[in-house]
Amino acid sequence: MSKFDGYEPGFDIPALPGMDEAEIATPCLVLDMDALERNLRKMGAYAKAQGMRLRVHGKMHKSVDLAKLQIAIGGACGVCCQKVSEAEVFVRGGIGDVLLTNELRDPRQIDRLARLAGMGARLGCCIDDIDNVAELSAAVARHGTTLDCLVEIDCGAGRCGVTDSAAALEIARAIAAAPGLRFAGLQAYQGAAQHLRSFDERKARIGTAIAITREVVAVLEEAGLPCEVVSGAGTGSFQFEAESGVYTELQCGSYAFMDADYGRVQDAEGGRLDGPGGWENALFLMTSVMSHVRADRAVVDAGLKAQSVDSGLPVVFGRAGDDLEYITCSDEHGVIADPRGVLRVNDRLKLVPGHCDPTCNIHDWYVGLRGGKVECVWPVSARGRFY
Amino acid sequence: MSKFDGYEPGFDIPALPGMDEAEIATPCLVLDMDALERNLRKMGAYAKAQGMRLRVHGKMHKSVDLAKLQIAIGGACGVCCQKVSEAEVFVRGGIGDVLLTNELRDPRQIDRLARLAGMGARLGCCIDDIDNVAELSAAVARHGTTLDCLVEIDCGAGRCGVTDSAAALEIARAIAAAPGLRFAGLQAYQGAAQHLRSFDERKARIGTAIAITREVVAVLEEAGLPCEVVSGAGTGSFQFEAESGVYTELQCGSYAFMDADYGRVQDAEGGRLDGPGGWENALFLMTSVMSHVRADRAVVDAGLKAQSVDSGLPVVFGRAGDDLEYITCSDEHGVIADPRGVLRVNDRLKLVPGHCDPTCNIHDWYVGLRGGKVECVWPVSARGRFY
Repeated sequence: MSKFDGYEPGFDIPALPGMDEAEIATPCLVLDMDALERNLRKMGAYAKAQGMRLRVHGKMHKSVDLAKLQIAIGGACGVCCQKVSEAEVFVRGGIGDVLLTNELRDPRQIDRLARLAGMGARLGCCIDDIDNVAELSAAVARHGTTLDCLVEIDCGAGRCGVTDSAAALEIARAIAAAPGLRFAGLQAYQGAAQHLRSFDERKARIGTAIAITREVVAVLEEAGLPCEVVSGAGTGSFQFEAESGVYTELQCGSYAFMDADYGRVQDAEGGRLDGPGGWENALFLMTSVMSHVRADRAVVDAGLKAQSVDSGLPVVFGRAGDDLEYITCSDEHGVIADPRGVLRVNDRLKLVPGHCDPTCNIHDWYVGLRGGKVECVWPVSARGRFY
Repeated sequence: MSKFDGYEPGFDIPALPGMDEAEIATPCLVLDMDALERNLRKMGAYAKAQGMRLRVHGKMHKSVDLAKLQIAIGGACGVCCQKVSEAEVFVRGGIGDVLLTNELRDPRQIDRLARLAGMGARLGCCIDDIDNVAELSAAVARHGTTLDCLVEIDCGAGRCGVTDSAAALEIARAIAAAPGLRFAGLQAYQGAAQHLRSFDERKARIGTAIAITREVVAVLEEAGLPCEVVSGAGTGSFQFEAESGVYTELQCGSYAFMDADYGRVQDAEGGRLDGPGGWENALFLMTSVMSHVRADRAVVDAGLKAQSVDSGLPVVFGRAGDDLEYITCSDEHGVIADPRGVLRVNDRLKLVPGHCDPTCNIHDWYVGLRGGKVECVWPVSARGRFY
């Protein structure tokens, strides 16, 4: 009995293993498994060479299967995620080390995290308000569990996190003194710098983040609270954090799939982050032409309900000579400029989504392709788990 | 036994009927049931007074429960939708009249529609390519079913639809001659005009659409193919189509919920479409403050994974005196400018989403509120059904 028994291809699920690529129902997220595995191995090798732990960001893909592959072949020590509902999915799916890189303040969410900590996985979360320490400590006491706690510092993103080392020290001391909580170190992620196009600008911003983090680490160390973990970094910046001597753990996510916006970010030589030697596009939104009344434009079946356009429109992949361009996006349709009139109804295109994270969160399935065949069909296990 | 037995509030489902509003897990879509019902009754009364059929757009909400309410109290004759997978959900859910306001070209999708036509509901779809006529006719012959077919004309949106009356006539004749297909009329929706801010500009664009449609109707009528159905119109324009004397059916969707972008559209007097006498906001994204380190900005738990920002950021509802503004949106966070420092951790806000359709498509549930209590919890039945 297969896990897909009773699933109707095209209705419940876009494809079944063994199908040809051309049989997949569109619009659908597909993975180039060869490219994906190369990306995973490459980041794993980098982290290992740098002596860093790689804690891959599960919020990007929300897939237990992918997290397991990242651990198996990609050098990951575990995952991080943003919501307790995601952590529940990863722990239930068998991931043994999960860090919530976020604060939990809702009493029911705190209770769920404390209970989840008794399910066999190592669990951690972040704190940026001293009142949260007692809330978490009371919850783990109720459940007889323990939690690793990181103090989150704002190292430039202007979102969560304390803004000075005195506040960080006060919270760290409170954690260290709180029953059931273990002070593990710092969360120091500069999300606002990841997508800056210029390498030098990115380096400068992360330089500031590193300086802030270094100072807090020193203050804590001097107070007898050494940071075992200093966690942060993303696909746009990880080399800077890795070479800083301050960070111990990388939280990259998008490197596995890439997307059109990260593709436009420049590497050290002024090339593209998805250019030669960079990260390969492994995630595509497969779409089909469903109307082509005008000679110079085709309408495809992937619009706003199949992708997030917050970071720009998707890019047509692998058809450079055809001058195809995705030019407008409405709820269920995309218009492709087709100046040479090369497209026909039912032709398929692979689009590189503008932004991978919120696009993956819309879909229920990943269809893994190798050699033109469907190799695997993975649920987006934590899709919609945003609470 | 309740249909919610075995559902864990907060994990599987954001709330259960009977809960207080304050107990709902966030981020979550909530419906103001009173406002919703007023919107539904108002549009139903308008369509009735105009002698128009109201075919509500199910693609907006993707909810069988809401579609049934629109039929029961809101004067709707049935629903329209955009994808065969949506039509399957509505027909299986008991909706008896479903029009696919879109073309189907994938052979498997065509086959599914033809088969669905044997499930007890009246079904229709659109055609903008003569080759599609034989494809559909062959499919209904295989299943022993029938389909209503509308010729889609492009009346200004530049997406699907034929661009001249000769092509429309050719396709209409082919439909009328094809076994198992019934020529029902025209699909003439001007989507590109719906959100134009200026009333006069909107009126002018829809005036052009009406003129195009009127001409095609006349050409078909002269050829012995009268249009029983001329279907189109949206929340931004329906009065124009209703008063045209050409259209017979309104396809409005957003009027039921409203959203921030439609709110900015001007009515005939220069007021807002969601202003006094307009449509009420019935859909909200409920969110909680989860970090508030800086005095003048709060971080809430609803970011890009809980909403689509394609038409702009959400707007804080009902807190005009507090000068709160949702100013930045990242994957899981929103930053609220709080210049007066009125917000506290765990405070809740109701956001009006920028664009209702793709926001609803992200969520699994609607939580219906009346008098501060959860009255109903409805699945977003066709969520993710975009193929």
